Amino acid sequence: MNNQYRKVYLDHAATTPVRTEVLEEMMPYFQEFFANPMSVHHFGQKSAEAVDLARGRATKLLAGSTTDEIIFTSGATESNNLAIYGICFANSDYGKHIITSRIEHHAVLEVCHHLEKLGYEVTYLPVDRCGLVNPDDVRKSLRKDTILVSVMHANNEIGSIQPIEEISRVVKENSKAYFHTDAVQSVGYLDVDINKMGVDLLSISAHKFYGPKGVGALYVRKGTKINPFIRGGGQEGGVRPGTHNVPGIVGLGKAAELVITDKLKESSRVLSLRDKLNSGIEKGIEDVIFNGHPLQRLPNNANFAFLGIDGEALLTAISEQGIYVSTGSACSSGEVEPSHVLLGIGIKPEFARGSLRFSLGRMTNEEDIEYTLLILEKEVRRLREISPLRRRV
Amino acid sequence: MNNQYRKVYLDHAATTPVRTEVLEEMMPYFQEFFANPMSVHHFGQKSAEAVDLARGRATKLLAGSTTDEIIFTSGATESNNLAIYGICFANSDYGKHIITSRIEHHAVLEVCHHLEKLGYEVTYLPVDRCGLVNPDDVRKSLRKDTILVSVMHANNEIGSIQPIEEISRVVKENSKAYFHTDAVQSVGYLDVDINKMGVDLLSISAHKFYGPKGVGALYVRKGTKINPFIRGGGQEGGVRPGTHNVPGIVGLGKAAELVITDKLKESSRVLSLRDKLNSGIEKGIEDVIFNGHPLQRLPNNANFAFLGIDGEALLTAISEQGIYVSTGSACSSGEVEPSHVLLGIGIKPEFARGSLRFSLGRMTNEEDIEYTLLILEKEVRRLREISPLRRRV
Repeated sequence: MNNQYRKVYLDHAATTPVRTEVLEEMMPYFQEFFANPMSVHHFGQKSAEAVDLARGRATKLLAGSTTDEIIFTSGATESNNLAIYGICFANSDYGKHIITSRIEHHAVLEVCHHLEKLGYEVTYLPVDRCGLVNPDDVRKSLRKDTILVSVMHANNEIGSIQPIEEISRVVKENSKAYFHTDAVQSVGYLDVDINKMGVDLLSISAHKFYGPKGVGALYVRKGTKINPFIRGGGQEGGVRPGTHNVPGIVGLGKAAELVITDKLKESSRVLSLRDKLNSGIEKGIEDVIFNGHPLQRLPNNANFAFLGIDGEALLTAISEQGIYVSTGSACSSGEVEPSHVLLGIGIKPEFARGSLRFSLGRMTNEEDIEYTLLILEKEVRRLREISPLRRRV
Repeated sequence: MNNQYRKVYLDHAATTPVRTEVLEEMMPYFQEFFANPMSVHHFGQKSAEAVDLARGRATKLLAGSTTDEIIFTSGATESNNLAIYGICFANSDYGKHIITSRIEHHAVLEVCHHLEKLGYEVTYLPVDRCGLVNPDDVRKSLRKDTILVSVMHANNEIGSIQPIEEISRVVKENSKAYFHTDAVQSVGYLDVDINKMGVDLLSISAHKFYGPKGVGALYVRKGTKINPFIRGGGQEGGVRPGTHNVPGIVGLGKAAELVITDKLKESSRVLSLRDKLNSGIEKGIEDVIFNGHPLQRLPNNANFAFLGIDGEALLTAISEQGIYVSTGSACSSGEVEPSHVLLGIGIKPEFARGSLRFSLGRMTNEEDIEYTLLILEKEVRRLREISPLRRRV
């Protein structure tokens, strides 16, 4: 990294740093209380207690849940895999039809694509220009053999917040299908109440809310018929074997506790900064398209198409000046195809390719936004002057 | 924990503490260089470089491997799942027969049991009294439709070291099957040379060699036809999606580097302590059976059946005096059934239930062994005096 510039990290949707309070709480479990929580001896029980405490804290983040409904995993990708494969394989006698949306995370879509090869049928619901699923479309797609509906809480690229309560009501009133939501991006900013949302399964990942990487959880409503995905020992009630990542789980628990305390205040703080960024871009730069819903959207997310510009070129140019954003999601970086999310909301491929995601976070302040606007305006102007794409718009 | 006693941790096969050098190397990646290595911006590249460095170090631990053959996972359970499911699902057109042993870890056996339900056939090879697989049995079991042979390098309960080179030669000479080994327990003590061993896939877990929990790796030989197991984004060449656990991976890399330096010296150090423990138990306590092979065995492992005693009662009694050991593996704690490994080597169930595993490590010293012998003798005597089992032996 070039140190002469201000550093402005606007890629919190990709990952967040571990908060100091979280890291402090994790530290004793690397060396001092390092035992395997499945070990029967006293020392193992110290670790088991730490896992229990974290599980209790996770239930408070996922309001309405109980400790026996929390399964710790290695992260959201595994949580989504466990949810979808686990439900499908356990309930295939009842049916083999799944409903999801076209703008889910790859960790949902790739599982669905794979299940299609195994004889399952998947309905991929369209979304509107703002990235929202229509609950009526869910209703029309439900069949007697639908076993699972999986619609994300908030989108990772454009931040659109789905009408989860309405969707779950439609699902429950018209079918026996289980309802899963990927709440990875939302849990740090929105209320997550299991019963209000009416979900049976819900995925989270600690590193998206200032906890450590490599640990997540899946909420599984009591009585849900689910198979293990990873198979092995007896950990997590047999649903998720493998030695517990004790420091990671402790970190998830502490991060969850801090989110509960800060969520409201932090959401409104980043919202006002995000709106400043939005209006600055719209005022200062011509030929931009604001991608996604103007209001029903994560408070920390902005996504713009800069017409006539290659998004990766702009990303690289501002990265050289210390501003870190992304094009699509980090998980699909290196892909040649434009974002399936932007295409899903009807953005033309050439505009999708010119889009950037800005995701704010705890460290973001007013000066960061001002600096970002300054550099963005300059670099968009420069790139447009030299860009052959410009003429084609 | 009761603080008045000496603490003697003899459960290193369950897990190990993170070494200070490892933790120090991990620390910057929690807060300072916290970016997602898949992020294209400069800050993401800092994380990607750390992952690359760790991958390079892992190749040195697994001698003969190259960086594109190392897949980072959440641990050995996932590595074993990826290896077995990944090979079976990618090669089912060629055949559906698997060969493994009766004393594999649950993370292998449970996957095999599940695959049987999906139409695969599994041959579970017996082992001799010492816990060794006979390569001739492998030869006789190989079929035209055998796609995978999975035999562990060293057993997690009794430490038996399998004749991997002979087994792999038999597999390669007589079939087109892939050969996988679970090297979780061995990699910290034995030479692991991919080509000498002749393996196509090999599983390791960082927390078994003084790295962090929640991270492991699977070696996959170039050209091996394998499916992803977890599905999602494009990480790890698409074979293992999910945001990289950067601090964990960095920790695995550093721990690997330290193992290479220390392996020889540390192996001979724990071997001499282990032998002191063995001879102390055999001299000081009557009616004990030494489980497993006397020589072809991990240097840090001892396993004894104390006749007429319930293993868990003895474990608890010595735990109260600060000595931490285990009955079977930590992963199967809470199970009512006696260890499948001990039953596999022909130990009677009542003796298997009276068995303890002692696994030594870096912190173990002479005084620990002396204290353990003292307490063991006392507690075995006490329990036998009050035990109703005693009379039945």
